Parts: sequence; C-alpha cells; structure tokens
Amino acid sequence: MANPSLLILAGDGIGPEVMAEVKRIIGWFGEKRGVTFDVSEDLVGGAAYDAHGKPLADETMAKAQEVDAVLLGAVGGPKYDVLDFSVKPERGLLRLRKEMDLYANLRPAQCFDALADFSSLKREIVAGLDIMIVRELTSGVYFGEPRGIFPDNEGGRFGVNTQRYTTEEIRRVARSAFELARRRNNRVCSMEKANVMESGILWREEVQWVHDNEYPDVELSHMYADNGAMQLVRWPRQFDVIVTDNLFGDILSDCAAMLTGSLGMLPSASLGAPMANGRPKALYEPVHGSAPDIAGQGKANPIACILSFAMALRYSFDMGEEATRLEKAVETVLADGVRTADLMGPEGGTPVSTSGMGDAVLAAL
Amino acid sequence: MANPSLLILAGDGIGPEVMAEVKRIIGWFGEKRGVTFDVSEDLVGGAAYDAHGKPLADETMAKAQEVDAVLLGAVGGPKYDVLDFSVKPERGLLRLRKEMDLYANLRPAQCFDALADFSSLKREIVAGLDIMIVRELTSGVYFGEPRGIFPDNEGGRFGVNTQRYTTEEIRRVARSAFELARRRNNRVCSMEKANVMESGILWREEVQWVHDNEYPDVELSHMYADNGAMQLVRWPRQFDVIVTDNLFGDILSDCAAMLTGSLGMLPSASLGAPMANGRPKALYEPVHGSAPDIAGQGKANPIACILSFAMALRYSFDMGEEATRLEKAVETVLADGVRTADLMGPEGGTPVSTSGMGDAVLAAL
Ligand SMILES: CC(C)[C@H](C(=O)O)[C@@H](O)C(=O)O
Ligand SMILES: CC(C)[C@H](C(=O)O)[C@@H](O)C(=O)O
Repeated sequence: MANPSLLILAGDGIGPEVMAEVKRIIGWFGEKRGVTFDVSEDLVGGAAYDAHGKPLADETMAKAQEVDAVLLGAVGGPKYDVLDFSVKPERGLLRLRKEMDLYANLRPAQCFDALADFSSLKREIVAGLDIMIVRELTSGVYFGEPRGIFPDNEGGRFGVNTQRYTTEEIRRVARSAFELARRRNNRVCSMEKANVMESGILWREEVQWVHDNEYPDVELSHMYADNGAMQLVRWPRQFDVIVTDNLFGDILSDCAAMLTGSLGMLPSASLGAPMANGRPKALYEPVHGSAPDIAGQGKANPIACILSFAMALRYSFDMGEEATRLEKAVETVLADGVRTADLMGPEGGTPVSTSGMGDAVLAAL
Repeated sequence: MANPSLLILAGDGIGPEVMAEVKRIIGWFGEKRGVTFDVSEDLVGGAAYDAHGKPLADETMAKAQEVDAVLLGAVGGPKYDVLDFSVKPERGLLRLRKEMDLYANLRPAQCFDALADFSSLKREIVAGLDIMIVRELTSGVYFGEPRGIFPDNEGGRFGVNTQRYTTEEIRRVARSAFELARRRNNRVCSMEKANVMESGILWREEVQWVHDNEYPDVELSHMYADNGAMQLVRWPRQFDVIVTDNLFGDILSDCAAMLTGSLGMLPSASLGAPMANGRPKALYEPVHGSAPDIAGQGKANPIACILSFAMALRYSFDMGEEATRLEKAVETVLADGVRTADLMGPEGGTPVSTSGMGDAVLAAL
C-alpha cells in the first residue's frame, strides 16, 4: 500500500518556522515508528501571491485535492493589507476550505494544566477545560451571494453579504458534532440567533431534526450566540461540544481559545466528506495566526502546529495511539517547564526557541 | 416649559420588578430635586402579545415616537418561544429600535470595584475596566432583505439573511463613537471582518473616512471581530471606545458585559437623531434579559435598570450632575455591602430583595 500523503503549506509569518518543527516530528515518526508519509510542499497566502500573483495557485489546489491531508501554517501579514480583496492571503485559505468542501472545523479549546495560570480567567474557572467547538466552514456569510460593494442612488455606497444555509449544510455539520459528542461527554450545544435571524431558525430546526432522528441518545441544547459568548466567559466548563455556523464559530472559537490563555497551543482540523479511500478530506492548521510581529525570530511556539499534526494522525490516519503519544510528549515537555516566550510566566521555566521546543518534544517522544 | 416626558415599557419577566424601583427613584427626583417627568406606561414584548396579539401595539409605537425618552425593562420568556417569528417578544423591541431609528447603542462595560471579584477573570485584569461599546442598532443582518426560509429544489429548505450597510449608516454611528471618545480617553477601535466580508471593507473605509475628515484628533484602530473577542478576554483594558455593527456588537458587547462579572449592573442607551427639541430619540434598557427563572420572586437586581435611568438623565436631559448623583448613590450602596442575590459572593454582605436594593439607593441619595 502506498504511504499516506501529506501536503505542507507553511504559508506566511511564523508559518514556516513552526512547520519546520512539525517536519522534524514527521521525520521521527518515519524513523522510529515506521509511519512514513509522502510529504510535498507548496505555497499559500502571501507567499503564493508573491510567487504567482494569487494566494493559491491552481496546481496547488489540485494537489490539495489529491493528498490524504493538508497541513497549513498560517496566512496573512501587514505587507498584504493593501491587496485587493480577491487576492488577499485569506482567500487562499478560504478557497482550500471551499473547494475541498471542508465543512466541519474542529476547534478544541483545552486548558493545559501546566499553563492554567496563563489564562486571564481564574484558575478554578479554566483548569481542566476541554471544549470541542465544531464550526461550519464552507457556507454562511463567508460564501453567500450576492456580495460586494455597490454605488447607491445618493452618491454613497452600500456593502452586502449574504448569510445562507441549506438543510443539508446544517445537517451534515450537526452530524459531525453529534458523532464527536458520542466519543466525548455526549452533550451538544447549538448556537445561533434564531430570535433575530430566519437562517438561525432553520439552523435550530435542522440540528434538532438530526438529533431527534439520528442521535436521540445525545443531549442537545440550544443557545443564542450572544448568550453563548457570555456563558463561555462565565462558566466555560458547562460545555462539551458546541456546534455553530461559520461566522459565529469564527468569533466564539477565538473567544474560547483565549480562555485557555495559550493560543500558541491550540490546533484545529477541518474535515470534509470521505474520499474513495475512506479518509475524509482534511486540512489541519494551528488556531493562531501568522504573528508577523515575531516572525523570523525563532520565538514562535510550534506546539499548536505540532498538535495539528497529532489531529491529522487521529482523524485522517486512524492512528489514535500515535496521536496520543505525540500529545503526551507535549504534556511532558510542558510539565518539565520548557517554555517558548509566549508561555513564559512569573513562575519561570526553561526558555527555549522555536527549534528548542521542537528538540524538547522530540526528546520526550 | 413642559415637563420632560418618559414612556415606561416594563415588559416581561423581571422587567416590571426592576422598573418598579426605577419609578420610585424617578419619584425621588421629582420630590427632592424638582426634576419632574411626565411618566406614562405601556406594554411591550410578551406582555403586549398577551393583550393585543402582537409584541408592540401601534399606539405604543406612536407614543414612543412622541416622548423624550423610553425606558424599557426586558422582553421574552419561555412561554413565548413557540410563537411565530413575526410576533415574538423580541420583534417589539426590534420595531422600537428600527422605527425610532436608534442607530447608536451605547453599552458601557464597567467593572465596579466592590464587585471585581465576581468576574470569572482575575481581579488585576478587570479592576478599573471601563469600556464603551457603540453598536450599530438599526441595520445590518438584523434588518437586511431578502430574508426568510424557503424551499429548495431538492426537497430541502434554505434560510437567508442579508448583511447590508450603507455609507451613511456607517458614518453616523462612527460619529457617535468619535464624539464619545473625545469625552473619554480619545481612542476608538472599530471591529469587522474586512478580511472575509465586503460589508466589512466598506465599514472599515467609512469609519476611516469619518476619522480622517472629521475626527483626526481621535486615535483610531481597526481589528477583526474574532481577534476583538480574543482581545476582550485577554486584556480588556486596552480598549476605550469600540464601534462595531449590529451583529458583532450583539456578541461582543455581551462578552464584554460578562467580563465585569455583574450583568445585573449594566445599563444601555440607544440613541437616534435629534428631535425638534434638540434631544435625541432615545431608549434606555438594562443589558440583562427578562430572567424568567427568577421573575416575580423579588430576587432581581434593579441596578442595571436604575443606571439606565441615569444614562437617560445624562444623554436625553443634559442632567449630567443628577446622573452622577445617582451613579454615586449606587456605588455607595455597593461599597456598603448591600447585595441582591446575584451579587452575593463568598465575602458576604447584607442580602436584600429587589425593593430592598431600591430602598438602599434611595437612602444613599
Ligand atoms: C484568516 C481568516 C480568513 C479566518 C476566518 O475568518 O475564518 C481565521 O480567522 C480563522 O478563524 O481561521
Ligand atoms: C433580545 C434580542 C433581540 C437583542 C438583540 O439581539 O439585539 C438582545 O440580545 C440585545 O442585545 O439587546
């Protein structure tokens, strides 16, 4: 059987630095665990724009469709802020999500014990936090038509975007959430603004339908998204799995991520329908952005990107044990007090660079 | 000159209870300070639905247009969840906002020193917090057309809402934010998703235009709304005034409110264009909802509603000194340890009912 294939798109800012450490880890799995990947690399975001005048070349898109999983670093940077909307770095990422039809974005918000004091929230509120946010990723206001900026009749302009969801778009992401809940604590909370938006009413009804017809054993609740933001801040451990749309998911998952206090630690997986080989289309990326302010200085924390690879092992390659091995190694390193700059708090620790963190994880493996 | 006029719409749940305390305070201002209001009362939300079959009678709407200010309690409750979208309690509130054209929703997120320990965030993060969120309130996805739920061609349905903003809608709320900033710490942060939504690009450009042409002295920054949610959690004191659209404002202002740990304390003002008498169209309401779980038990905290009246004194009646007098009375009461159930923490205090809190504020006045 052919080796599983991985396409690495390191992207912009700290993307290439953190990805360099992941590549060493991939190498380790090949050497020590006999888990060998066919790895190819390509450009995305600003880096792709610099090379091709667009944030994702068609050939790269085609490659992404063929591989078993894509690993992405980060896109964007101030240098590209002046670009036209259609060629901004983000469009490369959005194109991947859309054309690969990666409708379920899994964003765990997990608080690592060794880092609980980093949170701006009290330790007793966040210690042990372990939420899974499932964000719809291929529809809603991100992709709805009509969209654009148009002249109006009074010499001004108006901007339009369209929030649009279909029955099937809602049902399939709801299924992802219920499946995950079954393997976790069996609870799903769905968030929308059904009190204000008809698309939110449809969302609520369809999630309820999937529950009643297919997952009656999972506990389902509904919450308005504004209350959701409040409850995340007030008492985040009340949640197990949260399912929500693309735009609410963008904001709520970032809010949840920040609760943990260590953004540099959080991975994500974006999954689509199963391919011919049974594996889902998949893209893995850290939740943090390209952090242009620290790019190229060896300061970035590679753990979020490393844990994204762990998610790939689990969700794309059915290697749950290898994923756990990698996650445990990360925990060991943290418990040992190994710290990149972003993790350096008042209680100190051993300061390391990006590659120093990579060394430590490899040693722990 | 005629007395200033106030329309009280107590609404549902705890609305009538907290409003009862405000009425006593209004009475005190008449007796002791010679500040007399012509007060009328009417129904809104579920209470109006029960009486008229719709959440806001046309006569009530007409009255709201005529008075100097509307004071609203809260709307909604589980009893009304089954109602059709078009007659849900919320529609009454949304109609008031839309027809009075109350485009600038001012939501202060302030942390009261005596209550800082109530926050789920660490004291050092929230102590002294004083943010003003200016949320656009009459446009965007709350009101944009087309909207609705429609059958699709495959036997399913799709839900649609439309985010739409015009140049003028953005500029006028931006002006409100800049004006407020000048009287505060002179900084405005505007939030949108210009990296994903064209309406966000227009938002960013028009806010920048107002800044450059009319308020170059105010410091302006822009932030993506997802990052905004993170930054609110990470380090909220970095903000002075935040200006954002209707939907982002709904979520971000609730998130900010919860940072303070005492939702029962937070007022809001919704302001429109000046009327013939120079006063802005205005509606004042607490940020908390109708809290059906504690309604009718004398447990509700009336302070948010009382402070909403203080905002009315300041923004509608140019009585800044009287407003400050009322705000100081509330601070005194808190410093004295007077506590409704929601404010009762481990360090104890004197437990009081809703009317007990009203008594205490009156005594402090
Ligand atoms: C980079 C940007 C387009 C993206 C989004 O808005 O989805 C990011 O914020 C995310 O959450 O992955
Ligand atoms: C009650 C509801 C319609 C309302 C809104 O979404 O605007 C509320 O959440 C608010 O923020 O005032």
